Amino acid sequence: MSQPLVSIVMGSDSDLPYMQQAIDFLTSFEIAHEVDIVSAHRTPDKLMSYAKEAHQRGIKVIIAGAGGAAHLPGMIASVTPLPVIGVPVKSDSNATEGWDSILSILQMPGGVPVATVAVNGSKNAGILAAQIIGSSDTDVQNRMLLFKKEMKEAVDAKAEKLKNL
Amino acid sequence: MSQPLVSIVMGSDSDLPYMQQAIDFLTSFEIAHEVDIVSAHRTPDKLMSYAKEAHQRGIKVIIAGAGGAAHLPGMIASVTPLPVIGVPVKSDSNATEGWDSILSILQMPGGVPVATVAVNGSKNAGILAAQIIGSSDTDVQNRMLLFKKEMKEAVDAKAEKLKNL
Amino acid sequence: MSQPLVSIVMGSDSDLPYMQQAIDFLTSFEIAHEVDIVSAHRTPDKLMSYAKEAHQRGIKVIIAGAGGAAHLPGMIASVTPLPVIGVPVKSDSNATEGWDSILSILQMPGGVPVATVAVNGSKNAGILAAQIIGSSDTDVQNRMLLFKKEMKEAVDAKAEKLKNL
Amino acid sequence: MSQPLVSIVMGSDSDLPYMQQAIDFLTSFEIAHEVDIVSAHRTPDKLMSYAKEAHQRGIKVIIAGAGGAAHLPGMIASVTPLPVIGVPVKSDSNATEGWDSILSILQMPGGVPVATVAVNGSKNAGILAAQIIGSSDTDVQNRMLLFKKEMKEAVDAKAEKLKNL
Amino acid sequence: MSQPLVSIVMGSDSDLPYMQQAIDFLTSFEIAHEVDIVSAHRTPDKLMSYAKEAHQRGIKVIIAGAGGAAHLPGMIASVTPLPVIGVPVKSDSNATEGWDSILSILQMPGGVPVATVAVNGSKNAGILAAQIIGSSDTDVQNRMLLFKKEMKEAVDAKAEKLKNL
Amino acid sequence: MSQPLVSIVMGSDSDLPYMQQAIDFLTSFEIAHEVDIVSAHRTPDKLMSYAKEAHQRGIKVIIAGAGGAAHLPGMIASVTPLPVIGVPVKSDSNATEGWDSILSILQMPGGVPVATVAVNGSKNAGILAAQIIGSSDTDVQNRMLLFKKEMKEAVDAKAEKLKNL
Amino acid sequence: MSQPLVSIVMGSDSDLPYMQQAIDFLTSFEIAHEVDIVSAHRTPDKLMSYAKEAHQRGIKVIIAGAGGAAHLPGMIASVTPLPVIGVPVKSDSNATEGWDSILSILQMPGGVPVATVAVNGSKNAGILAAQIIGSSDTDVQNRMLLFKKEMKEAVDAKAEKLKNL
Amino acid sequence: MSQPLVSIVMGSDSDLPYMQQAIDFLTSFEIAHEVDIVSAHRTPDKLMSYAKEAHQRGIKVIIAGAGGAAHLPGMIASVTPLPVIGVPVKSDSNATEGWDSILSILQMPGGVPVATVAVNGSKNAGILAAQIIGSSDTDVQNRMLLFKKEMKEAVDAKAEKLKNL
Repeated sequence: MSQPLVSIVMGSDSDLPYMQQAIDFLTSFEIAHEVDIVSAHRTPDKLMSYAKEAHQRGIKVIIAGAGGAAHLPGMIASVTPLPVIGVPVKSDSNATEGWDSILSILQMPGGVPVATVAVNGSKNAGILAAQIIGSSDTDVQNRMLLFKKEMKEAVDAKAEKLKNL
Repeated sequence: MSQPLVSIVMGSDSDLPYMQQAIDFLTSFEIAHEVDIVSAHRTPDKLMSYAKEAHQRGIKVIIAGAGGAAHLPGMIASVTPLPVIGVPVKSDSNATEGWDSILSILQMPGGVPVATVAVNGSKNAGILAAQIIGSSDTDVQNRMLLFKKEMKEAVDAKAEKLKNL
Repeated sequence: MSQPLVSIVMGSDSDLPYMQQAIDFLTSFEIAHEVDIVSAHRTPDKLMSYAKEAHQRGIKVIIAGAGGAAHLPGMIASVTPLPVIGVPVKSDSNATEGWDSILSILQMPGGVPVATVAVNGSKNAGILAAQIIGSSDTDVQNRMLLFKKEMKEAVDAKAEKLKNL
Repeated sequence: MSQPLVSIVMGSDSDLPYMQQAIDFLTSFEIAHEVDIVSAHRTPDKLMSYAKEAHQRGIKVIIAGAGGAAHLPGMIASVTPLPVIGVPVKSDSNATEGWDSILSILQMPGGVPVATVAVNGSKNAGILAAQIIGSSDTDVQNRMLLFKKEMKEAVDAKAEKLKNL
Repeated sequence: MSQPLVSIVMGSDSDLPYMQQAIDFLTSFEIAHEVDIVSAHRTPDKLMSYAKEAHQRGIKVIIAGAGGAAHLPGMIASVTPLPVIGVPVKSDSNATEGWDSILSILQMPGGVPVATVAVNGSKNAGILAAQIIGSSDTDVQNRMLLFKKEMKEAVDAKAEKLKNL
Repeated sequence: MSQPLVSIVMGSDSDLPYMQQAIDFLTSFEIAHEVDIVSAHRTPDKLMSYAKEAHQRGIKVIIAGAGGAAHLPGMIASVTPLPVIGVPVKSDSNATEGWDSILSILQMPGGVPVATVAVNGSKNAGILAAQIIGSSDTDVQNRMLLFKKEMKEAVDAKAEKLKNL
Repeated sequence: MSQPLVSIVMGSDSDLPYMQQAIDFLTSFEIAHEVDIVSAHRTPDKLMSYAKEAHQRGIKVIIAGAGGAAHLPGMIASVTPLPVIGVPVKSDSNATEGWDSILSILQMPGGVPVATVAVNGSKNAGILAAQIIGSSDTDVQNRMLLFKKEMKEAVDAKAEKLKNL
Repeated sequence: MSQPLVSIVMGSDSDLPYMQQAIDFLTSFEIAHEVDIVSAHRTPDKLMSYAKEAHQRGIKVIIAGAGGAAHLPGMIASVTPLPVIGVPVKSDSNATEGWDSILSILQMPGGVPVATVAVNGSKNAGILAAQIIGSSDTDVQNRMLLFKKEMKEAVDAKAEKLKNL
């Protein structure tokens, strides 16, 4: 695989099922990526070194997924100059309906943004990463236009099918 | 001014005070940008043509701010291949503490992401736009690293001042 | 079937089970209607043309159901002079207990109302459409009075049954 | 004044400032209307007779505004065949940020809809009433199209003004 | 059975499982009671006559359970001089986690109280009714003191059992 | 003053302005009452002895107001056989919009009810206490019927005044 | 077993499964502890004597878990000079998503703190108790440093395993 | 001043007014403490070294206050073996009523607790720190018992004053 452009990290291997769609989308878009487990609260030193060095290794976007008091995206954002996409993860056992991870990721202070997507919206995180890369890569941007066209056609087909019922 | 790279749109001129920090940040970062009023509900045709053509005019990132049932960022995202940053605007008269604009912007369906920042977080929207541009522009990325260093030094100075009290 | 008076649209075929009660009620009331899939985020052009032309085709009320950051009802309302009824759809996988679709549909800005009904309240959307038609059609209004009488009698029968236990 | 087509009721005279925009809109649209105070909890008998008779007096739409455990719109809807528009009123002293009136009005049981608009959205209640009347009155519907055009032009003018700054 | 002192009403027979504990408690306390279905929205006339006459028939407390935009307790309270206990009912299909019935019952306007108990807290509604009757009936009050003693002893027994593990 | 029938307690003298309406209502209804400060967290021993003895001193109803993690009503209810009315107090400085006191008072476990009224609803607490006393005191109940009639007439007068504008 | 240093109490034996992780953690850390059932609402006298005497028996930290209007931790804190750790318990049947126990435990008034941990976070309650003991016991503190190292190594192992997939 | 036992840190000097009560309480209790500004997002390296070394310098408890997506307490807790007390700070400009800082601090994952106190509850943070120190320092614990006695007497005095009105 070529040099990864997108880094996908998550706080625990239990987040993997919730983050898989980001991986799958980037794979389908043929955008090279890497996947790792980095815990803000259990491996803070790894977080710091990983996030400080990512742009030096050619990474262009970091996607970080976390649940609960989700500190991972924000702490990565504190030390990287790269755009960081945060995915609030809500597992079945979450007690506060995901509001903890939404607010911990979204409500970052002035100076340190995290690009937050919907709860369990890792597919959209992958698409957003592709859009960011596409904003300086015409090939990727054209594929994004095609992707939108395919979404439209899929809805049209469903509408047609409904009418025939 | 050179070719704008970032487009900042808002649903109403009453949103301007809440969006000013995005404009100011991009100005301070010397990233060319344009500002416009586009209302999802009052000028939907303008929204559609504006959003469809933005990438053809060289725009690389769109920042959209809106309050209430904030449809502007999501509708722009529906027709552009560009990354769209959404700013939930909460004015003093908002009745639901900003939850309406947070959720209307954040909870986009699979396929059409909006990179959501904190309520009234337009400064972070400007910074995120710069980070996106910086991911393929070393000069901008280096300025971002410098910006982070300056934030650190400002906190250090305040900590020093506190100790001397 | 005669000229449809009510248009029922939804953002995805996965919303159909949640919208079926509106369809069933209008059928039982013998009010001609049409059903279509129109996605605010995947088929925005179809949305625009569909909504702009509906009143010209004789449609009197539009019912729109959508989940998540539910933009469909509001965007239809932005371009039609017709009353638009919005149904917040909450599927089992919704992460925020339906608040996203409630607020995205309810909190429309001044100038562009959406008549919002309860979460997953598509039956009430159908009834409301009938009431709107009935306000200028005595036959439909009389059927509505009868419908209310039947609801009362059903409760009376249940109360009677309970007493006999 | 001619025969009123729209009835605007509220639970208390303290709700009048919040309901004024509905009155003003209907006046500007030259749609005849009446205004009354009807309290679900203090004048329940008046509520019952008022709501039962409204359609017999030629009323086509009822707008009801109420705060707190806002029962007025729903109780009116329980006995009238007319479409009822509910306005959640949130005064400055409301303790629960208006959620009480939103949910009391919105979450009506199957069989008895209330067309809910945004918190303190009485202007939209007036517009929705006009749209309902317009769905069987071409003159009113044409005025609604004109109203939408004027909203668009007002935004265009503001956008123009912003560009000239 | 002797003259009922407590009236237990609910909006629908589907609320019966949630209200059963109130019935069972009053039965165990040998307080005569009656049970009926009265729907605020489907049988409003029955509600009015039922609630107006209850105190004349010797009823001393009314317990009313309802879900969604639960208007039943408040509308009963509007016409009776009796204390009304409201039980917010949250069925499994409720979309807003019971907040609709909590707030519709709790947030009554000044002048018309409803004594609200916990969501699905019909057992406590029965106990509260007994406490109200007990405040002027020494026998019932003494049984209440005994009931409290039994609760204490049950906890003590569990604590003892835990220690022996 | 004669033997108090109602005890009004609050956690702090800062709650007095929020509880004054209960005192005023009972005074206007000529129901003898006493007022005291009892803090669940600062004077727990006083709470226990006060609540255990109240019914022995002839008290028939206890009204308890508290803010924040409002434990006062529930702890009183744990040791008295009397009905306890809880008033959630929300001062201007409350950070969570009163939800803390609402839920701490409302969500009592099975066996120990608190009759909860609206946030800052101390007037309704006073009325509810009068209704409880009235359920075994015809004079008080008749005054309650009169009170309801006066409320109705006040609304009628306001409605009349509005029509004359 | 040696003299217990930590007391773990809960309001009901049904809370035991939610509190087990605190017990297990302290066992694994070889910190002597005791477990008891103390109900704020059913055994208030036991609560008072238990909490007043705990520090005299050598207890250094009290962990209290409770659900609903969780008064147990706060009432213990009202009479003990010891640090009290509160665990909001959310069982499957809880109607308000655990917000009742979160707010009842967290929002204590000035003067009487409760150290609140996450909903159902009894493991963290056990760890926090160990950290408190460790702040004056070097052995326990060193074990805590080792515990953190083991957590890090467990994440590293999972990250390694993920890379090998 | 002697060796500090408690470290009070906050994310910004704008948090100082909200944290002052912790400082004042510890001063009044004659517990040596230090105050510093440490920002999770602006000075992450300082956070890491500060938190890793605190226990080596004789600190026994760390109090950390932060607003918004408050990561400071949790990140400190990730690297220190000491008990960490978190204070959710809600400034006037906070958009989400403090829920962001409550949940970001409270909902820490298993393994890394933060002892959370009420929103803006820095006084209680100071008291909790004293209780923790007092659990192994009889002098401090005795002062805590005296402090509780003084709180009781202050309430008794207010109750007395109220009765004399």
